[in-house]
Amino acid sequence: SFQNRYDYDVVVIGAGHAGTEAAAASARLGARTALLTTNLDTVGQMSCNPAIGGVAKGQIVREVDALGGLMGQAIDATAIQFRMLNRRKGPAMHSPRAQADKKSYQNHIKWQIESQPNLDLRQETVEDLLTEPSDSKDPQESATQRVVGVKVRGDAVYLAKTVILTTGTFLQAIMHTGEAQSAGGRAGEGTTAGISGALHRLNFELDRFKTGTPPRLNARTIDFSQIEVQPGDDEPQPFSFLTSEITTSQMPCHIAHTNEAVHDLIRENLTRAPMYSGQIDSQGPRYCPSIEDKVVRFADKSSHQLFLEPEGRQTQEVYVNGISTSLPRDVQDAMFRLIPGLEKASIMRYGYAVEYDFCPPTQLWPHLESKSVAGLFLAGQINGTTGYEEAAGQGLIAGLNAARTVAGQSTWVPARQDAYLGVLVDDLVTMGTDEPYRMFTSRAEYRLLLRQDNADRRLTAQADQLGLIDAPRRDRLAEKLEQIRIGRELLAAARIEKSPADVYLRRPEVTWPMMCELVPELNQIAPDAAEQCCIDIKYAGYLDRQQMDVDKQQRMSEKRIPVSFDYNRIGSLRTEAREKLTKVRPLNLAQAKRISGITPADLALVLAHLEH
Amino acid sequence: SFQNRYDYDVVVIGAGHAGTEAAAASARLGARTALLTTNLDTVGQMSCNPAIGGVAKGQIVREVDALGGLMGQAIDATAIQFRMLNRRKGPAMHSPRAQADKKSYQNHIKWQIESQPNLDLRQETVEDLLTEPSDSKDPQESATQRVVGVKVRGDAVYLAKTVILTTGTFLQAIMHTGEAQSAGGRAGEGTTAGISGALHRLNFELDRFKTGTPPRLNARTIDFSQIEVQPGDDEPQPFSFLTSEITTSQMPCHIAHTNEAVHDLIRENLTRAPMYSGQIDSQGPRYCPSIEDKVVRFADKSSHQLFLEPEGRQTQEVYVNGISTSLPRDVQDAMFRLIPGLEKASIMRYGYAVEYDFCPPTQLWPHLESKSVAGLFLAGQINGTTGYEEAAGQGLIAGLNAARTVAGQSTWVPARQDAYLGVLVDDLVTMGTDEPYRMFTSRAEYRLLLRQDNADRRLTAQADQLGLIDAPRRDRLAEKLEQIRIGRELLAAARIEKSPADVYLRRPEVTWPMMCELVPELNQIAPDAAEQCCIDIKYAGYLDRQQMDVDKQQRMSEKRIPVSFDYNRIGSLRTEAREKLTKVRPLNLAQAKRISGITPADLALVLAHLEH
Ligand SMILES: Cc1cc2nc3c(=O)[nH]c(=O)nc-3n(C[C@H](O)[C@H](O)[C@H](O)COP(=O)(O)OP(=O)(O)OC[C@H]3O[C@@H](n4cnc5c(N)ncnc54)[C@H](O)[C@@H]3O)c2cc1C
Ligand SMILES: Cc1cc2nc3c(=O)[nH]c(=O)nc-3n(C[C@H](O)[C@H](O)[C@H](O)COP(=O)(O)OP(=O)(O)OC[C@H]3O[C@@H](n4cnc5c(N)ncnc54)[C@H](O)[C@@H]3O)c2cc1C
Repeated sequence: SFQNRYDYDVVVIGAGHAGTEAAAASARLGARTALLTTNLDTVGQMSCNPAIGGVAKGQIVREVDALGGLMGQAIDATAIQFRMLNRRKGPAMHSPRAQADKKSYQNHIKWQIESQPNLDLRQETVEDLLTEPSDSKDPQESATQRVVGVKVRGDAVYLAKTVILTTGTFLQAIMHTGEAQSAGGRAGEGTTAGISGALHRLNFELDRFKTGTPPRLNARTIDFSQIEVQPGDDEPQPFSFLTSEITTSQMPCHIAHTNEAVHDLIRENLTRAPMYSGQIDSQGPRYCPSIEDKVVRFADKSSHQLFLEPEGRQTQEVYVNGISTSLPRDVQDAMFRLIPGLEKASIMRYGYAVEYDFCPPTQLWPHLESKSVAGLFLAGQINGTTGYEEAAGQGLIAGLNAARTVAGQSTWVPARQDAYLGVLVDDLVTMGTDEPYRMFTSRAEYRLLLRQDNADRRLTAQADQLGLIDAPRRDRLAEKLEQIRIGRELLAAARIEKSPADVYLRRPEVTWPMMCELVPELNQIAPDAAEQCCIDIKYAGYLDRQQMDVDKQQRMSEKRIPVSFDYNRIGSLRTEAREKLTKVRPLNLAQAKRISGITPADLALVLAHLEH
Repeated sequence: SFQNRYDYDVVVIGAGHAGTEAAAASARLGARTALLTTNLDTVGQMSCNPAIGGVAKGQIVREVDALGGLMGQAIDATAIQFRMLNRRKGPAMHSPRAQADKKSYQNHIKWQIESQPNLDLRQETVEDLLTEPSDSKDPQESATQRVVGVKVRGDAVYLAKTVILTTGTFLQAIMHTGEAQSAGGRAGEGTTAGISGALHRLNFELDRFKTGTPPRLNARTIDFSQIEVQPGDDEPQPFSFLTSEITTSQMPCHIAHTNEAVHDLIRENLTRAPMYSGQIDSQGPRYCPSIEDKVVRFADKSSHQLFLEPEGRQTQEVYVNGISTSLPRDVQDAMFRLIPGLEKASIMRYGYAVEYDFCPPTQLWPHLESKSVAGLFLAGQINGTTGYEEAAGQGLIAGLNAARTVAGQSTWVPARQDAYLGVLVDDLVTMGTDEPYRMFTSRAEYRLLLRQDNADRRLTAQADQLGLIDAPRRDRLAEKLEQIRIGRELLAAARIEKSPADVYLRRPEVTWPMMCELVPELNQIAPDAAEQCCIDIKYAGYLDRQQMDVDKQQRMSEKRIPVSFDYNRIGSLRTEAREKLTKVRPLNLAQAKRISGITPADLALVLAHLEH
């Protein structure tokens, strides 16, 4: 009945951080992929701060890169400042972060997407999801519906075996600045109603979250002489394992400070803040609090840092990191009047909060496919997460698995011990989230294994088997592994002070340059391989111990629970446990154990019935 | 009653091509200016083709530049290909044109705007115009209302003495692709309803126009081996009088062709084209016809050229100049299947037409202020024009005059003999337009005087007096004038074949390089000054004749008609003439003469009454 019909294997809705990685991954695997997005000029847009990476997030970017994703190379090509956070701490805490030239980043991503074979990027607004009853006889399939495509504005449909929904903050979105409200997923843009309708119709549970963004200032109106400079690293370290060096110049950021006068002003106006007036009652990200939250929650602090981050090389727009707010305009204006250096700052865009629908992610399998609608994948902010990196990582996993599903292959997700991405999807589908979920190193029980420096060693060989990467990346890894092998051999063979060199290297005060002086052959080892040798040797004890934990856990993971397993058959199971297990449908005993409220006794009952 | 209130001298609504020039001009003059636009990411956006200039339009850009505007330097900094059109014709026909890197152009304009003192660029959606009854006793003022500011989304008002409305195609806009319609001024964006409502309330006459845009293709899917290359000029000539040289590399364009099979397909589907099905009945730009128009109007042509223009250096998007269309999607897809080289082309954005409200410009004074609402200026597409250049030129004039009004100074517009911009505003306010108005050289009766090469000589001294330009531009002109003076002196003093060198130069076959061989001192003259010497001398006869016409006309222009002049007092005036004169309210007899349908007899009557 539709005039216009297009056929694809995979249709991705939304070209944000999740959608672009999803589409690129799916197309790399050879699936005929369409990436549909409302406006081609907002592909890969950074809705909020112009930066990639950060604690735990930087590790995710390295993993996305190790799996052949886009984000790492895009930020390397377009960053204006690099900083390795937590340098003074152990290597598991090292987290790369970079400020982006926001527009260049976006253009770079769009360009990569346009250049990807098998991938059609098209400006389309999706209005509905098309499904039909699932006729699958596969007992492993729980879905009652099956996705068949999407309907777009302008009387056209895209038919596809799989659909990936990555609409970010755009579902039924309402923006708030003080008392003022308007519809839209991002300032200056619209909202998406049809998709929420479709999800309701398909019996998805939907919930509301909120997030916020700070005002943007005009640099021309800032008195930088009053503000502390924050330069980038002297030796910027790239995000991508394929980038050998960062050669572009770096720009400084600046640090300003709030003060008691600002805090008083905010306190006086708290009743006008949508979060406190009751106008918003959905949950925001606890770890990205608004300035009004900070003033309330940390009432004893007399000052908060504000990072002034340029939005690019050729713009005067400055992002004020640390002052996310949905206070009314007059309060936003007045706040800056009270901050040294910003007294005359002109606001170009006011801060605001946005409330939007998300889909509690316990409705998904770990590979991000819906449990109830076969072929429908969800990734990114729509799953209750926050952050570009979290979105990108989920996108890659969803794209990979959509393409594998189309090809009739089994699904693949990294395990918790192999990647932050494994932690991410497992946390989401096992525990859900009652606030916008962001990654932290503390979420990973094996974080010594999940370092930014070894993401390639953890994931790239696997990515190669999956068909996600190409020859240069394969060769790059092989070369690095070979260098590590040679380095380790040299270290084992050479002797210093009568003991093997690797034993000597274990001493805390001994560094690689010192080793090179003592064992000159080591000079041939490239820095990235040398770093791996050092960490492997220096942290061997900790790493081995963590690996033992992994192996122990592994045995539980190997106890698989069939999708069709009926928890009602275990008469003695507590009602709470039965409900939770039926909802999450864990794929193995280890996942079942991670469901909050599931006790060892519950697990023992399930195990007994499985072995039965 | 509003929580948030901002005070400015000049408020500009919309940061398109008109709005950015308006705001920059007003701020340069020292007026406290706010530029309000729905989305800061679309400042200076090229809605349609990624190019600046062209026949007559290129001359306008040179004039905007000579007056200190932004457009010339922005395109010089961001172009990917320069071509001087009509090089083989006389100098009056030479027209510069350049392909832009669309995103870079936009960023460049935004950056200039952000960096302009006295100018606040802010993301705001204007919802209403605020006016009050005019209490002016000035008989020169015809307005019954006076603008006092605007209301924006989010419970705030901007108060200002003058407001410049430059909302382009966004008023009550509807987009069409085949049978499908949706609201929006540009694909992926919204529309603006409140302002049309305000204009209605203020008794403005509004009418509807339409314009269209072609599909964009992905270069990755084009077979360029089958398509002719079109390189840029070997020696690219900059647009701005301040740019000494273009040093960036140039990119090629390509030329494909439609054929009879394409035309047959279009004919078969004409009933589904909104323009032919009756779905659109407003007028489009006759000289930018859609492909369906071309097939109908030039039925005997078996092929039309399609220029494949890259949208930038780092994008695969290709603009297909020559195939603007609102045919349904399936026809757009099928058309390309039939064009050699484009058989497999993937459409990234479909072509569409947009219908929008405009304000017939006879409701304005030549300086673009409303006759009925004092302080309200209109510029750009809202005045029934089409084209970035026409919009930019009007913007500059409106911005200049708004700032002068605020400062209590008299208005200024260039005369028809001084600039295409003079022709533009005079045509608009005197004759109105029954189709989207674009500039042509044929609209200028003194086009020998209005060349692209002498825009600075025509306008920059005046711009200096008006306060529109700064020292570098002033110095640049002085230097060039001095060079011309020296050149002319040398030519007058030297003798070749027994006659003065300037007489010798008049010979058609004699070129400047030949002159330099014969009179080596001429080598010291810079190329731009040498060009002026040549044209002044070679075309002296024609130029003098045109100047005489100007002088004759001038006498009529000096017969001023007071704004308060009451045509009803001329009892013997024909009704048609009375109505038209009352509507247009020409400022002088020359303008009255240009009103269509006004006869010499009518003019004689008016003159008699004036001298009375
Ligand atoms: C105001 C605001 C503040 C934020 N603050 C923070 C913060 O402080 N820290 C942080 O880490 N993260 C923050 N975020 C979140 C961050 O922007 C997201 O995590 C990230 O962008 C999510 O990526 P995504 O791909 O899931 O969605 P998005 O990047 O939002 O992309 C969604 C895409 O889908 C498209 N789309 C929507 N509907 C349709 C449709 N119907 N048809 C076709 N396309 C459609 C949109 O145009 C868009 O391109 C904020 C976001 C917003 C809006
Ligand atoms: C589909 C299409 C096809 C076209 N085809 C051609 C062509 O073939 N040839 C040609 O010469 N020209 C063409 N044009 C016209 C060209 O784009 C315009 O002439 C030019 O952009 C006009 O400039 P402007 O400044 O008047 O308006 P615009 O460039 O349209 O700018 C208007 C600005 O106002 C802003 N705005 C709108 N409403 C509000 C509000 N309420 N509050 C705040 N801001 C607001 C918008 O966001 C925008 O930034 C086309 C335009 C469109 C949309």
